[in-house]
Amino acid sequence: MTTAALSPDELEEALRTHVKGYHHQHPFHLRMNNGESTREEIRGWVANRFYYQLNIPKKDGAILSACPDREVRRRWVQRIVDHDGTTEGTGGIEAWLRLAEAVDLSRDEVEDARHLLPGVRFAVDAYVNFTRTKPWVESVASSLTELFAPDLMTDRLAAFERHYTWIDPKELTYFRTRIVQAPRDSDHGLEIVRKYCTTKETQDAAMSALSFKCDVLWSMLDAIDLAYGHR
Amino acid sequence: MTTAALSPDELEEALRTHVKGYHHQHPFHLRMNNGESTREEIRGWVANRFYYQLNIPKKDGAILSACPDREVRRRWVQRIVDHDGTTEGTGGIEAWLRLAEAVDLSRDEVEDARHLLPGVRFAVDAYVNFTRTKPWVESVASSLTELFAPDLMTDRLAAFERHYTWIDPKELTYFRTRIVQAPRDSDHGLEIVRKYCTTKETQDAAMSALSFKCDVLWSMLDAIDLAYGHR
Repeated sequence: MTTAALSPDELEEALRTHVKGYHHQHPFHLRMNNGESTREEIRGWVANRFYYQLNIPKKDGAILSACPDREVRRRWVQRIVDHDGTTEGTGGIEAWLRLAEAVDLSRDEVEDARHLLPGVRFAVDAYVNFTRTKPWVESVASSLTELFAPDLMTDRLAAFERHYTWIDPKELTYFRTRIVQAPRDSDHGLEIVRKYCTTKETQDAAMSALSFKCDVLWSMLDAIDLAYGHR
Repeated sequence: MTTAALSPDELEEALRTHVKGYHHQHPFHLRMNNGESTREEIRGWVANRFYYQLNIPKKDGAILSACPDREVRRRWVQRIVDHDGTTEGTGGIEAWLRLAEAVDLSRDEVEDARHLLPGVRFAVDAYVNFTRTKPWVESVASSLTELFAPDLMTDRLAAFERHYTWIDPKELTYFRTRIVQAPRDSDHGLEIVRKYCTTKETQDAAMSALSFKCDVLWSMLDAIDLAYGHR
């Protein structure tokens, strides 16, 4: 066991390979991408994942609140704008609500959280609490699951267009948008972690933060799979 | 003593008249507006007030993090953008740094906080902690000291241009910008408080929050006056 700090490149490589439990490997997502999900599973996933979407700006607000680096904040604030939009009817949360309508959920039943599973709520709340209480660079590191998002989104978009033709492909905007935004976001996150995590301690903390975030996403899917999964 | 809730108009009136201890009445600011401040006093004030400016985006990030209303967040996020700017060399914090240079402080000595007084630090930190721990509508109410900011800024700008001619008037941009931004910000804050504070309890909390914020600003000036004031 070494106690030496890694170089920025070694750290990046470690972060990329470290992530073994990213949720695209979860049985629920494997079945989804294979076209095996029922409408009920898709609806349960969309309704529950909405709670995650809803909390993204709260997470990013917490990071802004903790971050003393103006240059970082100037770029990070864009995530909140992307997600909330700039006017009624725009932004990532709105795009997710349109996806919900396309899978025959009403806005009301998604927004009032009647389908929200306790396990999903606890996982998402744990993520927001993490960003409110941990050093901001660890919160940034936790966001690096986005490193894997573009591939995941590309595969998911293809799967939806191919297998779930009952969903209007026009309403898959959220996935299409994230394919563009996620690389920009993860590039920025990586840049920060490479710059700030230069000691063994902070590098270990970054790795732990990324593992924690993988656990959040995985745990959400466990709860969703248990409630809606036909296995 | 009544226990009935106020109408929105009554609440607004109460908030406007409630504020008795706003810091424009502090002896330090009265002397400043009368042209009686020494260069040392101005410099001490600029260097210490910078810590407040620096923490504004952290306060606003905390409010975003706590606020579940997307429409509110869409408008509130502009405060962070205003303060941090969009590129190097823009925004309110940068404008304050230029003011610092105009009063013959170096950027370094302002940014490294070597002049920062404990009383100022404690007051500003109390404000950020308030917004991180209190209900978000109370944090919004605490921001309503901005109701009084345009008049204060107009008077201050006039006083600086008239009495402190050793300061390049070009570098008073911060004050000029806030004369425009503050009414927009306080209009939004008032709109939120009028909408959400409809019970006696929430209205009392809003009044307390505004008093608290007045105490923050007053306490900062007490510390500055004690350290730099020639009385």
